[in-house]
Amino acid sequence: MSTSAITEKLLTAKKAKGITFADLEKILGRDEVWIAAVIYRQASASQEEASKIVSTLGLEPELAESLTESPLKGSLEQTIPTDPLIYRFYEIMQVYGMPIKAIIHEKFGDGIMSAIDFTLDIEKEEDPKGDRVKVIMSGKFLPYKKW
Amino acid sequence: MSTSAITEKLLTAKKAKGITFADLEKILGRDEVWIAAVIYRQASASQEEASKIVSTLGLEPELAESLTESPLKGSLEQTIPTDPLIYRFYEIMQVYGMPIKAIIHEKFGDGIMSAIDFTLDIEKEEDPKGDRVKVIMSGKFLPYKKW
Amino acid sequence: MSTSAITEKLLTAKKAKGITFADLEKILGRDEVWIAAVIYRQASASQEEASKIVSTLGLEPELAESLTESPLKGSLEQTIPTDPLIYRFYEIMQVYGMPIKAIIHEKFGDGIMSAIDFTLDIEKEEDPKGDRVKVIMSGKFLPYKKW
Amino acid sequence: MSTSAITEKLLTAKKAKGITFADLEKILGRDEVWIAAVIYRQASASQEEASKIVSTLGLEPELAESLTESPLKGSLEQTIPTDPLIYRFYEIMQVYGMPIKAIIHEKFGDGIMSAIDFTLDIEKEEDPKGDRVKVIMSGKFLPYKKW
Amino acid sequence: MSTSAITEKLLTAKKAKGITFADLEKILGRDEVWIAAVIYRQASASQEEASKIVSTLGLEPELAESLTESPLKGSLEQTIPTDPLIYRFYEIMQVYGMPIKAIIHEKFGDGIMSAIDFTLDIEKEEDPKGDRVKVIMSGKFLPYKKW
Amino acid sequence: MSTSAITEKLLTAKKAKGITFADLEKILGRDEVWIAAVIYRQASASQEEASKIVSTLGLEPELAESLTESPLKGSLEQTIPTDPLIYRFYEIMQVYGMPIKAIIHEKFGDGIMSAIDFTLDIEKEEDPKGDRVKVIMSGKFLPYKKW
Amino acid sequence: MSTSAITEKLLTAKKAKGITFADLEKILGRDEVWIAAVIYRQASASQEEASKIVSTLGLEPELAESLTESPLKGSLEQTIPTDPLIYRFYEIMQVYGMPIKAIIHEKFGDGIMSAIDFTLDIEKEEDPKGDRVKVIMSGKFLPYKKW
Amino acid sequence: MSTSAITEKLLTAKKAKGITFADLEKILGRDEVWIAAVIYRQASASQEEASKIVSTLGLEPELAESLTESPLKGSLEQTIPTDPLIYRFYEIMQVYGMPIKAIIHEKFGDGIMSAIDFTLDIEKEEDPKGDRVKVIMSGKFLPYKKW
Amino acid sequence: MSTSAITEKLLTAKKAKGITFADLEKILGRDEVWIAAVIYRQASASQEEASKIVSTLGLEPELAESLTESPLKGSLEQTIPTDPLIYRFYEIMQVYGMPIKAIIHEKFGDGIMSAIDFTLDIEKEEDPKGDRVKVIMSGKFLPYKKW
Amino acid sequence: MSTSAITEKLLTAKKAKGITFADLEKILGRDEVWIAAVIYRQASASQEEASKIVSTLGLEPELAESLTESPLKGSLEQTIPTDPLIYRFYEIMQVYGMPIKAIIHEKFGDGIMSAIDFTLDIEKEEDPKGDRVKVIMSGKFLPYKKW
Repeated sequence: MSTSAITEKLLTAKKAKGITFADLEKILGRDEVWIAAVIYRQASASQEEASKIVSTLGLEPELAESLTESPLKGSLEQTIPTDPLIYRFYEIMQVYGMPIKAIIHEKFGDGIMSAIDFTLDIEKEEDPKGDRVKVIMSGKFLPYKKW
Repeated sequence: MSTSAITEKLLTAKKAKGITFADLEKILGRDEVWIAAVIYRQASASQEEASKIVSTLGLEPELAESLTESPLKGSLEQTIPTDPLIYRFYEIMQVYGMPIKAIIHEKFGDGIMSAIDFTLDIEKEEDPKGDRVKVIMSGKFLPYKKW
Repeated sequence: MSTSAITEKLLTAKKAKGITFADLEKILGRDEVWIAAVIYRQASASQEEASKIVSTLGLEPELAESLTESPLKGSLEQTIPTDPLIYRFYEIMQVYGMPIKAIIHEKFGDGIMSAIDFTLDIEKEEDPKGDRVKVIMSGKFLPYKKW
Repeated sequence: MSTSAITEKLLTAKKAKGITFADLEKILGRDEVWIAAVIYRQASASQEEASKIVSTLGLEPELAESLTESPLKGSLEQTIPTDPLIYRFYEIMQVYGMPIKAIIHEKFGDGIMSAIDFTLDIEKEEDPKGDRVKVIMSGKFLPYKKW
Repeated sequence: MSTSAITEKLLTAKKAKGITFADLEKILGRDEVWIAAVIYRQASASQEEASKIVSTLGLEPELAESLTESPLKGSLEQTIPTDPLIYRFYEIMQVYGMPIKAIIHEKFGDGIMSAIDFTLDIEKEEDPKGDRVKVIMSGKFLPYKKW
Repeated sequence: MSTSAITEKLLTAKKAKGITFADLEKILGRDEVWIAAVIYRQASASQEEASKIVSTLGLEPELAESLTESPLKGSLEQTIPTDPLIYRFYEIMQVYGMPIKAIIHEKFGDGIMSAIDFTLDIEKEEDPKGDRVKVIMSGKFLPYKKW
Repeated sequence: MSTSAITEKLLTAKKAKGITFADLEKILGRDEVWIAAVIYRQASASQEEASKIVSTLGLEPELAESLTESPLKGSLEQTIPTDPLIYRFYEIMQVYGMPIKAIIHEKFGDGIMSAIDFTLDIEKEEDPKGDRVKVIMSGKFLPYKKW
Repeated sequence: MSTSAITEKLLTAKKAKGITFADLEKILGRDEVWIAAVIYRQASASQEEASKIVSTLGLEPELAESLTESPLKGSLEQTIPTDPLIYRFYEIMQVYGMPIKAIIHEKFGDGIMSAIDFTLDIEKEEDPKGDRVKVIMSGKFLPYKKW
Repeated sequence: MSTSAITEKLLTAKKAKGITFADLEKILGRDEVWIAAVIYRQASASQEEASKIVSTLGLEPELAESLTESPLKGSLEQTIPTDPLIYRFYEIMQVYGMPIKAIIHEKFGDGIMSAIDFTLDIEKEEDPKGDRVKVIMSGKFLPYKKW
Repeated sequence: MSTSAITEKLLTAKKAKGITFADLEKILGRDEVWIAAVIYRQASASQEEASKIVSTLGLEPELAESLTESPLKGSLEQTIPTDPLIYRFYEIMQVYGMPIKAIIHEKFGDGIMSAIDFTLDIEKEEDPKGDRVKVIMSGKFLPYKKW
């Protein structure tokens, strides 16, 4: 079964049952963003986590297997995505990329923020002038090795 | 004077004087990321802010003028940047882009996180297993208008 | 059902029934451009609006559901579209893009015209020398936030 | 003298003299967007219009000559511009391109909106919830010729 | 029915019946290039013309309907086509593009040759040293509007 | 001296002297498009033709030498040119490319129209509804060799 | 039947019957490279040649028809092919392209080597240090026409 | 001194002295294509060969040094070169690439023709119907290693 | 059967049987990376090796045939792969490419490391601070031929 | 001073003094590949290491400063490099990328080989059939974090 077929099956079941990602967060004890990444086949679950997702959505147990595999990652088809919500993150990097690089090097030295030893949370900040989306990324700093 | 010439002049002076972005944050009362964005000519300062930056770095007052202009934004030359620190943010979107979209729509409905009414902070989290880079983005949610 | 399959189903029914976008505008009380955007799956309708569209076109009520979802936006496949009608808008930006940027900054300061809090109307101007297409865009000005 | 050198010379003089595009509109009796297009070397002025622009900005009369030439048009360097203000117009076409095509064909038949026999105005709409940018395009409809 | 399916159906019938584009030119009273453009779904025929094409090729009358629609134009899939016959026209523009621009501006002023109010003929010139292909394009000159 | 430096020198002299391409056509006995191609360094002149061009424009005789060389051809920098006049020819191929291929193969068999054994003329057709640009291309048909 | 379907059918039959391109060369009296080009639908055969190919491979006679058509040429999908054998020819042009151009112009003047009036042979040169592939191209020199 | 500066210096001297690549072939005892590759900085000469080239062209001995270095190879700037002479070789691969691959594998097995242990000759074949360019490539066959 | 269909069939069987690449290495006496390359259709096996792979995986013997063919190589679809594991190797070349080139030329002279007469091994290095991936490449040095 | 200017200055001095990367390895006690990376401005040295490099090459001490900065990384200009030595590493990934991914996941689970906590060595293996280049990469395995 191709990657996107599995994703579509899980999302359709999730919608039909009226289950939110926040519901899955409570059931699995894992963050909703990570669970969404498993469903979009960008992250791999343990056998137990996979079974919980599949059974919560009321799907056949055999589907769990494929959620444990290491997928070929990359959820966006286009070089520069056209979807406005996703594009804004690319724009943020175009505008703030060099400033971010300068600040991180000043605080940490030469190296990078890991995108593997990494977590990402999304919160809703209520605000009378309009609610705000808060995105919190936390990645281990990896200094360049000398040899 | 071309954009990158101004940036280079400011960064050279900043290094020679040993002033950090954190120092500028205290002097201006503005976040260091935003100040770095002004210096990289991605954001525009008020006349007063521009003068403070220029005088703190010990440069000629006439340079302040150009920091108040609305620049042609985009600090990265390549479609897919090769610098590893910057690329990681692109990879984060490739892997977590669709999950982020799904979660934001579930929490807020159809719309986007603004990249204009937007702030970005970088913090250093000390951790015995290796320090962590924390990036906090906060953008106003803009619902799609119907007409 | 994939996005384009829904769009094709709706357009085929619309043609078979001889209903124009202007007819739908009267029935829904929404602008015809926005309704076309819903049908091309670039905008999301309320449950009620979706039901009206589907029933006006004489289609099964279950189709309404999918018109309420937040789609992955981007209706054009190619980076630089080849269709002459659509390409002209890209050419307009190539020729008038920098002038537009200069004028908006002069009138409003640093910021952008929102493409989300945004409306777009198309009118036919009769003219003895050849009718004219009038396109009116109205977007909220969003000033860049400082922090 | 290369195209961008002329543009920079004119813009520098305009800024130094504190003249707005709206001032030039009053002096020339031409729309400010068109005048900006001449200055960005995307449109060509008559000998008289060129002389007025140059003398108003206090520059040497010989510069007028080059404003009368038919330039190699295209004011944006990148395929997908990174500047947020300019990008929004590309996003508008990605989202509303197919709906616009459908509506124009329904109203006019097969053909295009000319980008040559074309005008573009920018107005500021004051609004208590935030001022709005209004962009009005008017282009002659050109039906496809049969032969 | 998708665009290319219709085109293939028409071309297969045309071949099976041994009808040339020149035959269709005589029957319709329209140029063979334009008729080929209708069949490749790049141009739209009137109801009557569509019926004549379909009946001449011995196909079901319902196919005529789709030949009257305004198609999404662009008959080539690749940015730079690999087919040698088609590529030569791109090469001609690479080599003679700037000379053509210079000559047209010298003869007509600032503006373009319309590709909409436009005709294109192909003739065979017999020549003892090798027959020649003659391509004659005629497009209305559109001067840039000032406003 | 780099290619574009020579071209600019020749065009500047041509403008200063008020000489048109049509004037050069009369003096050289060669078509104005070909002469423009020599000046844009896309074609190579004989020693005699080069000297005539250079002396007519009142420039130093040594410049003639470089007009006799076989240049690295390609006068357009971008893959898809942004200049509207030049772009129209690309659009013509996008829309009429497959029809042209079909017609030429029907008339001539498998092969191409040469872009080397090739001439191109531009004429002005006066027309009360608006003058027309006429472009006449004539290229030798080259049948594919079998071996 | 789509192009690649025909090619696959012919290649499968060729393999099943154990017929080499060299065998087909003897039967048709045409070079094996050209025959391979017909099978990959890059060249068009005469009615008689097509029948011989089809019958030698033991396939139904109706397939012969499609081998006589002028195909849309270009056998490689990617701009820069990834297959190492094919890529080497691109590398040869990257490294030796300018030297080849210089030598051909020195020997022949301004013009090109035709890729249409053109043959290509592949020979195996036995060599104790490792066999060598010999590729011999022969194309008519086409001088640029002046007009 | 940058690569292209050296190349230009050598070519200018070669032209001024009226020396052909064939002359250099006789003096060095190396093929003219390889010598041209050295001059275009795509191949590296021995100290002795470099000195001979430089002295034959009457240039300062210090230039010889740089001809002995291993250059960053790739003599063409564009992905798909626009120069017609060079493009024809790309077209040959588009049309005959898959046939060449099939024939080489049939004759040699899985592997490639080396572009390193490789020679390339260009000959002029006189022909009453028009002279022909003959290009002969010879590369060692490298079978894929198994391990 | 298309390439990826065979690959998928083999991988599915391999997973169902719980056979690792290391198991296959022992059975075939070939390195696991090379065996994986055969399964991903990037390398070609002998008749005997192909039969062993197919029978070990419990699949029908006819599948062996296709593993002996010389495939059209290139296992990655995108120019710059998005999968983080694969991208890291591209990043390594971006960062260390020029240093590698400089060191190899200093040690070996002008030439390349063959990617054909080439082996690649992957080892797991246990390390208390975190296990390490060791990749060992070994390719024959091929000096550039002079001629 | 721009990045490439520093690199060129260091390489010129290194060549003039006849110092190899292996010599620098002995003096600094760091691997030659890493030192080459510092010189190509892809890695940052400590103050002491930078001073040693600069003084060994006999250059002015002020140059050391710039070798301690965190550079904007990426030493190759083109998306797909044309230099044959560098390209081979891209080809290796095209051919062996998916096999490498499969083997690493089988040995380590879901995660990546770090390109930051990473070393790379190049060795010369003498071999009577032709010397071999050995490239040894060692990177920490980073498992994907769950959260």
